[in-house]
Amino acid sequence: MILPSILSLSKQLIRQALHPGDAAVDATVGNGHDTLFLAETVGASGLVFGFDIQAEALQAARCRLEAANLEGRVTLFKESHHRMADCLPAEVHGRIKAVMFNLGYLPHGDHAIITRPETTVPALDAAARLLVPGGMMSVVLYTGHPGGPEESEAVIRWAKKLSPHRFQTMWVQLPNRNHAPSLLAVEKRREAP
Amino acid sequence: MILPSILSLSKQLIRQALHPGDAAVDATVGNGHDTLFLAETVGASGLVFGFDIQAEALQAARCRLEAANLEGRVTLFKESHHRMADCLPAEVHGRIKAVMFNLGYLPHGDHAIITRPETTVPALDAAARLLVPGGMMSVVLYTGHPGGPEESEAVIRWAKKLSPHRFQTMWVQLPNRNHAPSLLAVEKRREAP
Repeated sequence: MILPSILSLSKQLIRQALHPGDAAVDATVGNGHDTLFLAETVGASGLVFGFDIQAEALQAARCRLEAANLEGRVTLFKESHHRMADCLPAEVHGRIKAVMFNLGYLPHGDHAIITRPETTVPALDAAARLLVPGGMMSVVLYTGHPGGPEESEAVIRWAKKLSPHRFQTMWVQLPNRNHAPSLLAVEKRREAP
Repeated sequence: MILPSILSLSKQLIRQALHPGDAAVDATVGNGHDTLFLAETVGASGLVFGFDIQAEALQAARCRLEAANLEGRVTLFKESHHRMADCLPAEVHGRIKAVMFNLGYLPHGDHAIITRPETTVPALDAAARLLVPGGMMSVVLYTGHPGGPEESEAVIRWAKKLSPHRFQTMWVQLPNRNHAPSLLAVEKRREAP
């Protein structure tokens, strides 16, 4: 297939912005798949910061990173992602090359624990500020669980308000797949168009 | 920028499906920009078929193709695109690798002459049938002119009904650009997923 899945499109776009030695954020660690992907992409001289409020998620991610021998370049925070600016060291503020969000609930976890617009939107604001010009944010959105459609709408409303002079955005949906995730990509411009 | 414009994303996707020696359709010739792009991409052994109802458009496209010395591989029809199946030679039915639609009105032409859902949707149906498995269709949609939002909605409603077993689809919007075009891409599957 030429047209990618939402998850592989998300990685394709992040990979174009993120290079060895860079700093990246996984805003929703979950089982650590994206954290591992980011850790591989930034290489031995790079840094990854991960956020999740569930100890279970962080433990799974830690195991995954240790199995790949990549835990040394990753710092995990048991914190809500809306607090990411407070947690990140000052020297990476405004220097983050990539931020990944994968919203909804923890797969194989408690489906009642979901990301919510009240914290998701402030987390997106924080991420947009932390990005370096040329940096990329990917947000995978789900509508198949209770609260999912409302969260997706809140995220897209947020994206619509971003200044087109400072951010390029793209929202990718799969119209003929019921409850397939969609992807919002946000790139911080290097200069005004 | 990493995130492409709608028009360059459309060409990127078509280029991945279309190769020298292939057959392609420009369903909305207009000033012939896409016709020229398709003619370049299919090479000397390929074929391009173009449709437009406006003589003015076909004349502009013909000039453009002649200037590039590519008119020999292009057949232009002064016909509505919903009649494309009747116009194409039988030997290319089911063998078309790429179809491009760029809806709305002719730039620098009469803005009252617009594509309309009553003919656009049958044209999309025809194009979906003419495509070879592995072939790609791109549809650039505009909402900034009267009738544009209704046409976009009709096209997306059409896409939602496509069988996910036979077609992979992707709808790309730019949330923070007012009246920016959006892109619907439709890929015919080689085999069921």
